[in-house]
Amino acid sequence: MKKQRIRTEQRETFEKRFWIKFINSISGYKPAFLVGTTDTSGNTNLAIISSVFHLGATPPLLGFVVRPHSTKSPRHSLENIQASHCYTLNHINKEIFPQAHQTSARYPRETSEFSAVGLTAEYKDGFAAPYVEESPIQIGLQLREVLPIKWNNTQIVIGEIQDCYLNEKAIMPDGYIDLVEAGSLAISGLDSYHEPQRLARLAYAKPQQATRPIPLQGEASAK
Amino acid sequence: MKKQRIRTEQRETFEKRFWIKFINSISGYKPAFLVGTTDTSGNTNLAIISSVFHLGATPPLLGFVVRPHSTKSPRHSLENIQASHCYTLNHINKEIFPQAHQTSARYPRETSEFSAVGLTAEYKDGFAAPYVEESPIQIGLQLREVLPIKWNNTQIVIGEIQDCYLNEKAIMPDGYIDLVEAGSLAISGLDSYHEPQRLARLAYAKPQQATRPIPLQGEASAK
Repeated sequence: MKKQRIRTEQRETFEKRFWIKFINSISGYKPAFLVGTTDTSGNTNLAIISSVFHLGATPPLLGFVVRPHSTKSPRHSLENIQASHCYTLNHINKEIFPQAHQTSARYPRETSEFSAVGLTAEYKDGFAAPYVEESPIQIGLQLREVLPIKWNNTQIVIGEIQDCYLNEKAIMPDGYIDLVEAGSLAISGLDSYHEPQRLARLAYAKPQQATRPIPLQGEASAK
Repeated sequence: MKKQRIRTEQRETFEKRFWIKFINSISGYKPAFLVGTTDTSGNTNLAIISSVFHLGATPPLLGFVVRPHSTKSPRHSLENIQASHCYTLNHINKEIFPQAHQTSARYPRETSEFSAVGLTAEYKDGFAAPYVEESPIQIGLQLREVLPIKWNNTQIVIGEIQDCYLNEKAIMPDGYIDLVEAGSLAISGLDSYHEPQRLARLAYAKPQQATRPIPLQGEASAK
């Protein structure tokens, strides 16, 4: 397949918005999340993010990236997280992705994106940050660290998972969560929403043996 | 929807492998990449990773996570990156995902995963690390930093994109890369491979206006 070469050295020859969209999509598929927080007065904030990544299972840590001059919503989220030390991460499904995307609009600080876009703040089990009731997989986290990245003044927010809420039908006997069953979406670039379909689960790889698929509960319906 | 609560406090009640698979999948969909490197003698190494994330567009930075006691392949990759200061990240498509998964087997250090799994090392434009010829989107990076994470001894590898190679048909007029057109896959958990289908691209969100979809080139065939 003939491929075009695009060089960073020549990035000045591209329009700025072209370059931002190009680089934002070259990192591949990203998970679709809403981060839920409250400020010290109890006002709720909700922001869409696509930079969540797995950092480890023991302890269970997730990271996400906050840009220095990104849309104001994630900045408000970060200020709330630094004040309250807790936040929620909520998977986005097909039913709520337009509302989730709408949280990226520049609402004033005193406006709750929950009511502005029509999603429901859910408080439970004594956790101080609001979950998104409509979300299929909800995660409550405690802040561990905000790590500065010197190369571009972004920050990586690291949190430890305290609670997870999801439909038990989505949890396979081996612990794997079937995200197709849960209905979670994937994002690419700044604005593209995708529904993944499973090709296969593959067995733990060994040197002298070709990779083989693992039979999945409900695989016939997922594929 | 009735949801089950899973608490980190009670993680001792789960089998260790159950917990690892559960937490590895709760972070949502991840991009599917092969990292290509060489050691100081020119021996090639190839490893599958699913932790790549976008850190910024200007300069164009990508991060990925290396665990302290993960499969040996990513450790060999990290040693090579620290010695050579360069590496490639290569998108994985439907045609090569079984071979890509197979790179996670514990091959001896002197074995090249390229030949062990049947993928082709491609050198071009003077870049010292090998690309995967069969990959639809190839990225060449210079190492900027290896950032230690104190909470679990993982490390975040930060690199700056130097070169991108892809079919120009996948580049939309606004700079967005159509990953469906490119054929890139998404991973969930440790072993599940997915082919995403586009639901919609949504316009830049504004406070007083409901979110609307952007018409896409080729959307009829993608949807």
